Amino acid sequence: MENGSELTTQIIDGPTNPMVTPLLNDLYQFTMAYAYWKAGKHNERSVFDLYFRKNPFGGEYTVFAGLDECIKFLANFKLSDEEIDYVRESLPGSEEAFCDYLRGLDCSDVEVYAIPEGSVVFPKVPLMRVEGPVGVVQLLETPFLNLVNFASLVATNAARHRFVAGKSKNLLEFGARRAQGPDGAISASKYCYLGGFDATSNVAAGKLFGIPLRGTHSHAFVSSFMSTDEIVDKVLHSADGKTTCEDFVSHVQTWLKKIQYSPSLSGIFSETNQSELVAFISYALAFPKTFLALVDTYDVMKSGIPNFCAVALALNDFGYKALGIRLDSGDLAYLSTEARKFFCTVERELKVPDFGKMVVTASNDLNEETIDALNKQGHEVDAFGIGTYLVTCYSQAALGCVFKLVEINNQPRIKLSEDVTKVSIPCKKRSYRLYGKEGYPLVDIMTGENEPPPKVGERLLCRHPFNESKRAYVVPQRVEELLKCYWRGSADGAREELPSLEEIRDRCIKQLANMRPDHMRRLNPTPYKVSVSAKLYDFIHFLWLNEAPVGELQ
Amino acid sequence: MENGSELTTQIIDGPTNPMVTPLLNDLYQFTMAYAYWKAGKHNERSVFDLYFRKNPFGGEYTVFAGLDECIKFLANFKLSDEEIDYVRESLPGSEEAFCDYLRGLDCSDVEVYAIPEGSVVFPKVPLMRVEGPVGVVQLLETPFLNLVNFASLVATNAARHRFVAGKSKNLLEFGARRAQGPDGAISASKYCYLGGFDATSNVAAGKLFGIPLRGTHSHAFVSSFMSTDEIVDKVLHSADGKTTCEDFVSHVQTWLKKIQYSPSLSGIFSETNQSELVAFISYALAFPKTFLALVDTYDVMKSGIPNFCAVALALNDFGYKALGIRLDSGDLAYLSTEARKFFCTVERELKVPDFGKMVVTASNDLNEETIDALNKQGHEVDAFGIGTYLVTCYSQAALGCVFKLVEINNQPRIKLSEDVTKVSIPCKKRSYRLYGKEGYPLVDIMTGENEPPPKVGERLLCRHPFNESKRAYVVPQRVEELLKCYWRGSADGAREELPSLEEIRDRCIKQLANMRPDHMRRLNPTPYKVSVSAKLYDFIHFLWLNEAPVGELQ
Repeated sequence: MENGSELTTQIIDGPTNPMVTPLLNDLYQFTMAYAYWKAGKHNERSVFDLYFRKNPFGGEYTVFAGLDECIKFLANFKLSDEEIDYVRESLPGSEEAFCDYLRGLDCSDVEVYAIPEGSVVFPKVPLMRVEGPVGVVQLLETPFLNLVNFASLVATNAARHRFVAGKSKNLLEFGARRAQGPDGAISASKYCYLGGFDATSNVAAGKLFGIPLRGTHSHAFVSSFMSTDEIVDKVLHSADGKTTCEDFVSHVQTWLKKIQYSPSLSGIFSETNQSELVAFISYALAFPKTFLALVDTYDVMKSGIPNFCAVALALNDFGYKALGIRLDSGDLAYLSTEARKFFCTVERELKVPDFGKMVVTASNDLNEETIDALNKQGHEVDAFGIGTYLVTCYSQAALGCVFKLVEINNQPRIKLSEDVTKVSIPCKKRSYRLYGKEGYPLVDIMTGENEPPPKVGERLLCRHPFNESKRAYVVPQRVEELLKCYWRGSADGAREELPSLEEIRDRCIKQLANMRPDHMRRLNPTPYKVSVSAKLYDFIHFLWLNEAPVGELQ
Repeated sequence: MENGSELTTQIIDGPTNPMVTPLLNDLYQFTMAYAYWKAGKHNERSVFDLYFRKNPFGGEYTVFAGLDECIKFLANFKLSDEEIDYVRESLPGSEEAFCDYLRGLDCSDVEVYAIPEGSVVFPKVPLMRVEGPVGVVQLLETPFLNLVNFASLVATNAARHRFVAGKSKNLLEFGARRAQGPDGAISASKYCYLGGFDATSNVAAGKLFGIPLRGTHSHAFVSSFMSTDEIVDKVLHSADGKTTCEDFVSHVQTWLKKIQYSPSLSGIFSETNQSELVAFISYALAFPKTFLALVDTYDVMKSGIPNFCAVALALNDFGYKALGIRLDSGDLAYLSTEARKFFCTVERELKVPDFGKMVVTASNDLNEETIDALNKQGHEVDAFGIGTYLVTCYSQAALGCVFKLVEINNQPRIKLSEDVTKVSIPCKKRSYRLYGKEGYPLVDIMTGENEPPPKVGERLLCRHPFNESKRAYVVPQRVEELLKCYWRGSADGAREELPSLEEIRDRCIKQLANMRPDHMRRLNPTPYKVSVSAKLYDFIHFLWLNEAPVGELQ
């Protein structure tokens, strides 16, 4: 705490959401802080691991996200007088002097080691190791879990959607309206982009994080128009500014007739919906350079597509290339294929180069399963707009990261449980990722803090932390230490700079691409191995036996 | 807009989360605003309905929540210059004059009618009717949906948990760490309280909304202690301040022996875990008036309960009543029952009045199903701490509220769909809840804006909006108009005051209690009827036929 002044030289912005304050906390963190303080234990040096126990969505990998927000929180950790008063009120019988303790509290004595954000991570391996006085580190538990759990969950969900959609598709996050509250929306936009999405519809997220924005118009826009009389200004200047179309509405109508009577297209439709046509014309006059129309308000093939083509062809005459269409209902495999055929016929019959390459965007309650089904049926969708299922992580709405004490006062601590998956791995640890000959990661291994690190080319025994019979020798071709220092408080030594969102996204995409494919597949993926060193294994089991009560069968 | 100055006389706080700004929006709302503006349509008077199509969680009711935040958003709706610049950048080719339009934009021409927050609501009936210039009302769609969808979903989830737990139990929301981001946590705390919970662990939510707080300590607190030497100050002053216990540790140890050798309890346990005992003593010294211990770090019956009782009995000697225990793992039915027996035995054998009434709190991944199962098995739990499943709405992570144009320029609009459940109900409407003889609500009915309201004692035909054969006569004993004015912009007339969270919560609890029980049960609940007047029915079907294209079988 005495070094608080040095701390101020490290200027790090606060968390994105100003509601992330030390009070975004479970009350019991404050009751414990008080009890530690009363017992004079609050400055005991503790080590906590933040990790999860099971990969989400039935998969075998997770993308770690949220670290940047944790560090920003930590760097600005300070209780205001008003907050301190509220805490004191909430702890009946607490002493006034506790307020002085809270007033002096910051993270200058805390150190945080973490796997870089955007990494592919696995169960049991600490994503973060947080060290410092137990009184303050406990106060980081709830906010850190809150900031990491959803971030990692939704980034993983995005990565899974990318995996099933394939690299060539455009993935657009459209979830703002169905997200779990305002920053459920904003953080979903951020972490979906991190997990490999290309753009979002969320303007606030675009502004905050520099994520590319996408958006067209809604059904309401289409139904708000009734007749061509509503278009007052029918003038369109050509893209090069050299010519002017005085009556763009008539020009479009001429094209609509040409399409209707073109030999290969006649019979597909007769009369299109006029209010839809007017809406498209209005939209095109507003955005001639980026015309993209929602074509399913009335009937995709009988109205939306012909209306769109008429407008697109009219724009084309004045040097503008329409972008494409969006489908938001119906059989997306069938409709996208039919739309593509229509565009290709227009290209061929009406001699408009590249018209067949019109972008087809699909939305409407898409998720991993529906995209997979579309792939199996065959489709002509170029871009997927994904909302509800993506941003709320509908198929599994929570990740279960936990924050467990592994050492206090240099004494290792273990949390036992009748459920072996819930036993914690004690000790301040190091973790390494070992790579094989083909460049894929083979196994993650945790060791005690002071064990020598695994060496390239040297055979090493990797043991399952709890299952005696599961072990394997590995000769790593490359060894990567996983935990890097992101926060040192006022301690000496270098720490990692916080990378930009683009850098984190790049890391994520590269790491996902570098995983052995059988870990990544949707059905029956192979679990990635997570292990401990022989020495740590022995120590875990020594502690376990020591702590567990011997039962008595009666 | 000219009346903007009058607007400022209505001072309403902004939304709880400062991230709720006009940019919390889908880009397409701005592209549409631009296209409307370009077409000179932006000031056309429009009416939008906000409603959902299906009750969540397989139930037949929903609690409406989020209105207060919507009105706070609306009342402070204003784009900053920086936001306007960003919007303009995001709309390639847009004209500078559009910025002037955005700069002048506020909600002084908007009117909002809504069902009071905390009401029990049903599919298809508008929760909100928003009227105003189409350019600005479109910009309210995404934020309103975002603010209502999760709020209503999680309030409904809370109400369902209350229903299964019963009125007598204490329900505590413990979800901060697993929620979908920071305000996923804070708003879940708010809306769970609204839906009938008693308290939260979330300190920020407690401070923001005045929700009662609850919290004890964690397993880490227990494992952070090792021996009684760690307790430096062993002194406890009695509750009345008249006596002092110089060595509370020894006093507790004496009690532990007494319990151990009491005839009815001997044999249940031999040696308890000492670090747990020390942790409990420390905690009791910090909070003698509100001692509540987490008893499952080592072994509930062999260590946690005896340790707790020893401390509680020692406190009792000095005039303090311990509150109880928390169980966070294992078979909660069995353990709560065994714990209760133990407490009752202590009361009887050691003559400590009321010791058997110790509060048993249970946590650990609880949800509707597990509480239902506990009820069936029989248990002795007094309070449930519920986290993940409650706040993330795990069993259904999103509610699908939509915002549909129903009228523009006094022209009714209908949105068709091949899926009949997605067809919108056109027209600016009124809605009424009709009550029967027994005081229960019987049916909600929507009518055209200018139809005479249903009258008490007068027979009325209620029709299913889309199913010709479903209709019923009703003679209402009470008629309640559902939509009330919550925002008038600068128009004349009274509007409802925004009630406090407590008032909203009271409404919710009363409305839930007043529903006919068969609508509320978990298994196969009876759907509540939602209808339209005969006149509106005819009009819907006239419009529908008018708009729908006639197919051709080929």
